[in-house]
Amino acid sequence: MIQPFTSLTEFRSLLSQAPGPDDTATADAQARNAQLTKPPAALGRLEDLAIWYAGWRGTGRPQLSAPQILIFAGNHGVAARGVSAFPAEVTAQMVGNFQAGGAAINQLAKTFGATLGVHALDLDHPTADFTQTPAMSEPEVVAALATGWAAVSDKADLLVVGEMGIGNTTAAAAISAALFGGQAQDWTGRGTGVDDAGIARKIQVVAEGLTRHAGLLSDPLHVLRALGGRELAAMAGAIAAARHLRIPVILDGFICCAAASVLYCTQPGALDHCISGHVSAEAAHARLLEKLGKSPLLSLGLRLGEGSGAALAIGVLKAAVACHSDMATFAEAGVAAG
Amino acid sequence: MIQPFTSLTEFRSLLSQAPGPDDTATADAQARNAQLTKPPAALGRLEDLAIWYAGWRGTGRPQLSAPQILIFAGNHGVAARGVSAFPAEVTAQMVGNFQAGGAAINQLAKTFGATLGVHALDLDHPTADFTQTPAMSEPEVVAALATGWAAVSDKADLLVVGEMGIGNTTAAAAISAALFGGQAQDWTGRGTGVDDAGIARKIQVVAEGLTRHAGLLSDPLHVLRALGGRELAAMAGAIAAARHLRIPVILDGFICCAAASVLYCTQPGALDHCISGHVSAEAAHARLLEKLGKSPLLSLGLRLGEGSGAALAIGVLKAAVACHSDMATFAEAGVAAG
Repeated sequence: MIQPFTSLTEFRSLLSQAPGPDDTATADAQARNAQLTKPPAALGRLEDLAIWYAGWRGTGRPQLSAPQILIFAGNHGVAARGVSAFPAEVTAQMVGNFQAGGAAINQLAKTFGATLGVHALDLDHPTADFTQTPAMSEPEVVAALATGWAAVSDKADLLVVGEMGIGNTTAAAAISAALFGGQAQDWTGRGTGVDDAGIARKIQVVAEGLTRHAGLLSDPLHVLRALGGRELAAMAGAIAAARHLRIPVILDGFICCAAASVLYCTQPGALDHCISGHVSAEAAHARLLEKLGKSPLLSLGLRLGEGSGAALAIGVLKAAVACHSDMATFAEAGVAAG
Repeated sequence: MIQPFTSLTEFRSLLSQAPGPDDTATADAQARNAQLTKPPAALGRLEDLAIWYAGWRGTGRPQLSAPQILIFAGNHGVAARGVSAFPAEVTAQMVGNFQAGGAAINQLAKTFGATLGVHALDLDHPTADFTQTPAMSEPEVVAALATGWAAVSDKADLLVVGEMGIGNTTAAAAISAALFGGQAQDWTGRGTGVDDAGIARKIQVVAEGLTRHAGLLSDPLHVLRALGGRELAAMAGAIAAARHLRIPVILDGFICCAAASVLYCTQPGALDHCISGHVSAEAAHARLLEKLGKSPLLSLGLRLGEGSGAALAIGVLKAAVACHSDMATFAEAGVAAG
């Protein structure tokens, strides 16, 4: 896909032109669902998922056979402030692990038949420490958004976006607080497992960032620029591109949802093509999902990132679509409809 | 597998000789888990699942590649009492649908790479109406247990058992009340969608059954005989056989768990090789899981039976095992361990 925007203003305009679901396909899927060989509503949320998916794919009887997982990696100036249990070098090391097939997300992609693309965003140049200056300039954030936008395949029929970036729960906490209000400590958690002193530093850093950029926080895209990271911007760009391609998205954990929140706060309904794959063990994630009005499919205590919780939910969505599109109707099977 | 028992006494004795997990394999799996390229505990319940699975499979680095789904179908004398939203003919019609590949469970089996075996148990001869006499004679219940026992493949590395049987939530409610106490209405729900008058009839039937067989209810295997159905007995037999073969089991909904409860109440620890795949929309299921001390993996409002909720959880368990056995260690990947 050709890079379709060169400024935040153009990106904002693209968001406002996003297509909705196909109402005819949704109605067709609802009608089909009522004919399938099961008691009404007996497949619970699987039925809602299949109908939602059908609407976005524009057919009452869709297939789900080409899920795409995209991992974006970025480094953060605030990592130097001691906000993570891991050193910043781990971002690049884990990118190597993704490329070699050794990470959790590689096994999940294989298990659920998804392609996996890994995009390292200028790891040698961390974003600026947002307690001092905005994390990114406008050209930097636009470039990261565009990387995400361009990474989405128009052949995909489902998208999962994940991330790797030492320090990025700090960025996600700052973005969430800026977009939805509340104190720094309301949105700050242990991330990959920081200790009590580390969490105190994280809260301090988030609070400093919010104060430093108070003048920018009324515009969600400038929140992303000032407090975000390249991988968060790329995730937002990918989710927006999926919307334009009518590719449904499964949201991952706290960082992914913070990136998605930038779209949600910029354009009402910008996440209507997204579902929540899971709620993570990072406490602020549940709070964020509530703000987004999303009910997670899974709750298994994951807190890994990499798109792992969303990837796990691919299986649920695949199952929902398979039941919807491949089950027999009462008439086809000669079963009494009760 | 040769039929290894010819009486309830022999079956009870087999239950008492069930093997436990391999402690060395469990320890190996715990040690491996600590070396994988992720923050400690970042995969949440997936880590516990993989370690539990490794113990039962007897290796610290197991594979999960041959899940087996078994569906047992039976007809119930109490169906004539108007306890279901569907006529009894639907049991046989749905067996035909399973065999033709048109039901939800067929699509789930395909999605998660499981084999599916369907066993119709003497559908032309429903069990007796348990408000009048015991549902089954001892030879009948033993035959059904043995059918389930023999159906489990020693090549399987995971088992899901499901059921089809118009009227079988009534049997499951009666068994649950007999095993765990409480009133008929505490265990009786809408099943496939019975109306208010139907639910009143169900409660009445369950209460009559409990009164009729009060003298038999101190022995869980006689509870199964008096109040159960052939498909419930077969599920219990299959779960017991899996234990002897050290094949882990994912439990399905209320009816499956009622059958499993017979084993649990006969022999402490009889379900240690089982996890709960999901909690269904049938309210008594959550209550039953609490009695069994099982925390469900999924909660998606399913209430279909057929093993569907457990089949959906195959994806989660496959993902857990794949991450555990195929991820790189910190040393292999050259990633700093934090």
